Amino acid sequence: MKTHTIKRFEDEMNELKEKVLAMGGLVEKATKRSMNSLIKHDTKRAYKVIERDQAINALEIEIDEMTRTILALRQPAASDLRFVMTTIKVVTDLERMGDLAEGIAELMLETQEHPLIHVSSLESLSDQVFTQTALALNAFAKADLDAAIACLQNHDKVNGKFKSMQREYLTYMMEDARQITAGLISTNIARNLQRIGDHAVNIAEMVIYMIKGRDVRHIDHSEAAALVTGNQQK
Amino acid sequence: MKTHTIKRFEDEMNELKEKVLAMGGLVEKATKRSMNSLIKHDTKRAYKVIERDQAINALEIEIDEMTRTILALRQPAASDLRFVMTTIKVVTDLERMGDLAEGIAELMLETQEHPLIHVSSLESLSDQVFTQTALALNAFAKADLDAAIACLQNHDKVNGKFKSMQREYLTYMMEDARQITAGLISTNIARNLQRIGDHAVNIAEMVIYMIKGRDVRHIDHSEAAALVTGNQQK
Repeated sequence: MKTHTIKRFEDEMNELKEKVLAMGGLVEKATKRSMNSLIKHDTKRAYKVIERDQAINALEIEIDEMTRTILALRQPAASDLRFVMTTIKVVTDLERMGDLAEGIAELMLETQEHPLIHVSSLESLSDQVFTQTALALNAFAKADLDAAIACLQNHDKVNGKFKSMQREYLTYMMEDARQITAGLISTNIARNLQRIGDHAVNIAEMVIYMIKGRDVRHIDHSEAAALVTGNQQK
Repeated sequence: MKTHTIKRFEDEMNELKEKVLAMGGLVEKATKRSMNSLIKHDTKRAYKVIERDQAINALEIEIDEMTRTILALRQPAASDLRFVMTTIKVVTDLERMGDLAEGIAELMLETQEHPLIHVSSLESLSDQVFTQTALALNAFAKADLDAAIACLQNHDKVNGKFKSMQREYLTYMMEDARQITAGLISTNIARNLQRIGDHAVNIAEMVIYMIKGRDVRHIDHSEAAALVTGNQQK
């Protein structure tokens, strides 16, 4: 490529990355805002999350369009191609995470009639999920392998917390039938948080592929960590 | 490209398509088998679904690897590039659909202790979802715009059915606390089916993009149908 073409290509790749991170920022904001609406009984914030999901969806389409253009005109190779492939997968996860945050906001609106039980558990699950999302996005932003691996390694804890909450809510519902609706809403909010965590792990796996050229999806997470750090004996 | 290179490229694109359809076939089989395990109280079939999810996961990795190779070596353009982009998105949906079918099989195993309520509703929801999956896969196989549009147009019916089932199960749980666990399992199975339907719609939307070069995600489905058929006055 000529020098000015290389420069333009680099600019496009940077712009692509910035857009993905902007989308990630919106998703983080939506998740936090939806949980804050719940904790502070603030329906205005919930409506804001629902309204702003459009901006996340618009970025998905814009980024996918950019990657197609780059593939068609620049024909990236090697690590550049891996970056573009990662981007294509990551935007799908981010879009779903936005939908799940929107779902939490919608569930929050239902809680007006049914005060939730154990909001503090939801809060602590959401803290874990925020960490997972931040790790995945930092891993992508800085091609940070350690952050990606940390995200994989935390995953079991998030799932464990979700499962114990499911049991806890079930017990409440069985003890008091008037708690059934509240219990169901709480379970659904916890499930949405857990699924946001799942998508963060998907992103982390793609980032590992981007950095190491190794596909670690569908491998046990500790095995994956050992594989990419070269510590197979651990 | 030289004639033999063109021939090889065409072969690769056909092979890619065949692999996606093979993956789709496994997903259809997994969904049907998981529902049959439920209807016929057959735990063996449920274990088979769980065991065979690995084959779906393996195809995801294999297909993604193929698309990378094609992008790197063949640098497809225009409709070929749209086909490859569609494939990259479609495999993600298919893999999730496989996970959801596996989830149904796992829930079926829980029903041994808690006989389900209203299995016939689940059966009729699953029939709708099988149709959606078949429409999406046929649309992809034959670049059939009508099938893709039909899939979009059916979506509201599937969601409506799921919502009315959620209410139905809630009523049962409130009337009889001993039904709570069974009601929750039934709700979760229905949710998995509804999400499989969601992924079928994602595939149909990508197929519309593949055929028409138009991104109809995040547009109202009837509007999307009018857009791509040119019947805006409808």
